[in-house]
Amino acid sequence: MSGERIYLYDSTLRDGAQTRGVDFTAADKAAIARELDRLGIDYIEGGWPGANQTDDAFFGDLPRMQRARISAFGMTRRSGRSAENDPGLSAVLNAPVQAVCLVGKSWDFQATVALGVDLDENLRMVSDSIGHAARVKAEAMFDAEHFFDGYKANPDYALACVKAAYQAGARWVVLCDTNGGTLPHEIEEIVSHVATIVPGDRLGIHCHDDTGNAVANSLAAVRAGVRQIQGTLNGLGERCGNANLVTLLPTLMLKMGYTTGVDEAGLAHLTSVSRAFDERMNRAPNIHAPYVGAAAFAHKGGLHASAVLKDPRAYEHIRPEQVGNQRHVLVSDQAGRANLLARLAEIGIEVDPSDPRLPTLLEQVKANEHMGYAYDGAEASLELLARRALGEVPEYFRLLSFRVIDERRYNARGELVTLSEATIKISVGGVPVMAVAEGNGPVNALDTALRRAIAQTYQPVRDMRLVDYKVRIMSAPDGTGTDAVTRVVIESADTAGDHWSTVGVSANVVNASYEALADGITWRLYRAGVSVQAAAEVAAANSVA
Amino acid sequence: MSGERIYLYDSTLRDGAQTRGVDFTAADKAAIARELDRLGIDYIEGGWPGANQTDDAFFGDLPRMQRARISAFGMTRRSGRSAENDPGLSAVLNAPVQAVCLVGKSWDFQATVALGVDLDENLRMVSDSIGHAARVKAEAMFDAEHFFDGYKANPDYALACVKAAYQAGARWVVLCDTNGGTLPHEIEEIVSHVATIVPGDRLGIHCHDDTGNAVANSLAAVRAGVRQIQGTLNGLGERCGNANLVTLLPTLMLKMGYTTGVDEAGLAHLTSVSRAFDERMNRAPNIHAPYVGAAAFAHKGGLHASAVLKDPRAYEHIRPEQVGNQRHVLVSDQAGRANLLARLAEIGIEVDPSDPRLPTLLEQVKANEHMGYAYDGAEASLELLARRALGEVPEYFRLLSFRVIDERRYNARGELVTLSEATIKISVGGVPVMAVAEGNGPVNALDTALRRAIAQTYQPVRDMRLVDYKVRIMSAPDGTGTDAVTRVVIESADTAGDHWSTVGVSANVVNASYEALADGITWRLYRAGVSVQAAAEVAAANSVA
Repeated sequence: MSGERIYLYDSTLRDGAQTRGVDFTAADKAAIARELDRLGIDYIEGGWPGANQTDDAFFGDLPRMQRARISAFGMTRRSGRSAENDPGLSAVLNAPVQAVCLVGKSWDFQATVALGVDLDENLRMVSDSIGHAARVKAEAMFDAEHFFDGYKANPDYALACVKAAYQAGARWVVLCDTNGGTLPHEIEEIVSHVATIVPGDRLGIHCHDDTGNAVANSLAAVRAGVRQIQGTLNGLGERCGNANLVTLLPTLMLKMGYTTGVDEAGLAHLTSVSRAFDERMNRAPNIHAPYVGAAAFAHKGGLHASAVLKDPRAYEHIRPEQVGNQRHVLVSDQAGRANLLARLAEIGIEVDPSDPRLPTLLEQVKANEHMGYAYDGAEASLELLARRALGEVPEYFRLLSFRVIDERRYNARGELVTLSEATIKISVGGVPVMAVAEGNGPVNALDTALRRAIAQTYQPVRDMRLVDYKVRIMSAPDGTGTDAVTRVVIESADTAGDHWSTVGVSANVVNASYEALADGITWRLYRAGVSVQAAAEVAAANSVA
Repeated sequence: MSGERIYLYDSTLRDGAQTRGVDFTAADKAAIARELDRLGIDYIEGGWPGANQTDDAFFGDLPRMQRARISAFGMTRRSGRSAENDPGLSAVLNAPVQAVCLVGKSWDFQATVALGVDLDENLRMVSDSIGHAARVKAEAMFDAEHFFDGYKANPDYALACVKAAYQAGARWVVLCDTNGGTLPHEIEEIVSHVATIVPGDRLGIHCHDDTGNAVANSLAAVRAGVRQIQGTLNGLGERCGNANLVTLLPTLMLKMGYTTGVDEAGLAHLTSVSRAFDERMNRAPNIHAPYVGAAAFAHKGGLHASAVLKDPRAYEHIRPEQVGNQRHVLVSDQAGRANLLARLAEIGIEVDPSDPRLPTLLEQVKANEHMGYAYDGAEASLELLARRALGEVPEYFRLLSFRVIDERRYNARGELVTLSEATIKISVGGVPVMAVAEGNGPVNALDTALRRAIAQTYQPVRDMRLVDYKVRIMSAPDGTGTDAVTRVVIESADTAGDHWSTVGVSANVVNASYEALADGITWRLYRAGVSVQAAAEVAAANSVA
């Protein structure tokens, strides 16, 4: 446990923007930078001034930082220009930030082939650019592109490049495994050599995950002396991604004893930072992500589940609370009674292990999972299933019928337009209630009509809304390949900030959606402690009116 | 480059079955085992005989293997029993396989607390069980659970456990990082110590990915002498998963010079093995997966894309063909002209860089992506967009109107039933064609009606079918948070085995679905070289008839 300080450099907004399927707006960038600053990241690479409109907009209106330093990325001067008179370099240095990171070649093949410059001129490009940047900015960093491939091909030249940057005044010389093909033992060996020329507290590491070793490579570099790690949130990045800072942080702090700009309280927010980022990107979080994944502390096997309940050290390498995550004991096809009891306790239902209703409930969970239900991500439906088995959930309403029509045709102005309209009829305490609504598609129309019908009687549904809607087509659970079933998972929220998820399964997607919607509303009413008796009276009074 | 042999032990069917959201049938297990055998994996752990019905069914009807050895997993004898008279152990040893792997404790805390046995008795449990197994099976392996935690707590006792197994005749002593909390440098140090007691060619390693280091830990163990690696396909497994054999294989073979049971030709099928496995599991493949992900050789940034086209070594650490993957140059918001041209060339469209239609097409791609279209996974829609811009795609049919009705109500027998019915009217060569169909939900009904209408005129749609249907709700692309849009991606296939994907985007999911369906059909007709002129004549003749 060294206690030494490691500096974290986040490149989510620059290298992460290369990710397939990711496109940041300037507003996204500002919001993510603020989040990284709150977490305690030291450097935030905002983008490349002059490269595109989004990056220009970001640097034109920088978010205010508490502690983090925003860095501008750019390239060393072009061949044949002076550093002072290179328009590309000037655009970077004119950005209103204190730190810049300039990429340059350190692989002889790249300098001569990709850039078409001779090796001495490449060295001057590095040293002129870094020297100029170091004079006009508080911190100039050199990003040695393809450093490890360069070292393997021509160690002397690669070392000459980083030495040139160091001697020109680079605060950090960052060793880049640009193609991501270097292995941990090679990193440790090569970095150890570099550290004899550039001191470790001036060295950074920038890894890619093309062999699944970006995290291990970063750790190997730290062990060899490096004190700055570059990476991204959730390992975003081109191809297989960059080193994942979310994974590295707890390992550095909890297992290797380093300090970072993140304190214990910040670390305890790591899970929510990671998930909020995915939410902003509209990506499903990786449930298997180290430390922060929803499954990272999930126990499914009957033996493991009962052991972990006795003593968590049996199957957990850290306490989930340290990173803001939590333990899950999964109900599943492999579920034993212990799992189900633990799962119910998690959602606040204490059942006596000898309760005669327990075996029936367990059978029902297994049967439903066999049909395609999944309660891992739909806790509210599991809670309702359990509470119904225990006789605790009243029937607030009952579906009598619905009809949804989607019509696409040319309107009077010759435009093709589509209308979705749903009508629904439910019974509340024996009183029929109807409603109709239009929507952006059948499920949206049905959702609106259902809430409209229910809101006539039940106040608490008025402040809830649908947050997310996911559809998955599954092959027939018996594997016979006849009819596929559809699983719909719906996330609802209320104005107080509560979120809950429900699931529906049916051969018909509209049915499955109705089921998940109805569970979502029922859960809200149950949690609000609504009395069915009072509701029936309201419904009856409405019906007379 | 050592050329030494590494043995691969796949635990997908046993430890992988612990994955959240995964439930294998016995038929799944047999099919996966055959696939692993074809690939060239040495050992396939089929499950735990006696633990559940699925595993019993699998061992009761074992798939025939070409080269692989199927292994049965189990536990060492219970305390106070003889190995010969332990019913659990007998169930495992009675399985008709030549190899067994028995798990036992090697952490003193686990032996005394979890099992409640004294330390000497635990040693006898290991040595009796392995000794008995080694006498009745060709290979007995010892899985030293929690070995690394055990070593850290009490190295002498942990070493005594593995020594007991080795001396009792274990073919392999497998060191397990059960909780996944050990780091690569610790693995290398500890394994090096173990290798002074048990020779490396009798040692195995079994890692979990709780710190994102399962791959690096396995490699560190190999460097310290271990010659068997346990892992799973695509890193399946409890919590954060097991060591990913799909990632490890190319690193071992292409970068470290080891030989395995997989030959060069097998390695060139790795991408399809990995993706077929996800398909069987009904999981979306991880596009960022090392080596085999769809994005593993994808180049998005304009600079990178043009450099990689000049010389792939610039941004690729291996040749994608070596693992059966391929290079992708992405069209994206960052797309320059070079990317678009490369992308088009990939799908077989050669465009002159000076073609005046190119800038318009580029603008259209960018505008569509801004609206929410994603062409990364919908190549057929991109091809149609490009070919339409080049004036190559005739209008085979035109939508006039559709109407979809989903109705749920009580039938005459008092059951709640749902019917979805779609009617559609299209124009083929100026002739209106109508069709109606029922389906499992609105999109299924609309799909069937559309095909039915088109098949009256166009033969080639009769042999195509919808394979996959994905829906994603996206927040408004301008970030204003008003109306969300829905993106639908559809995968179609024909009887010849061709697969193609199309995309539709709209505020209304039924519209978006129609668009993707219509593109899917148009692509099929275009590829079949259908003549619109002939089709119009058929339509007219049909209409008279």
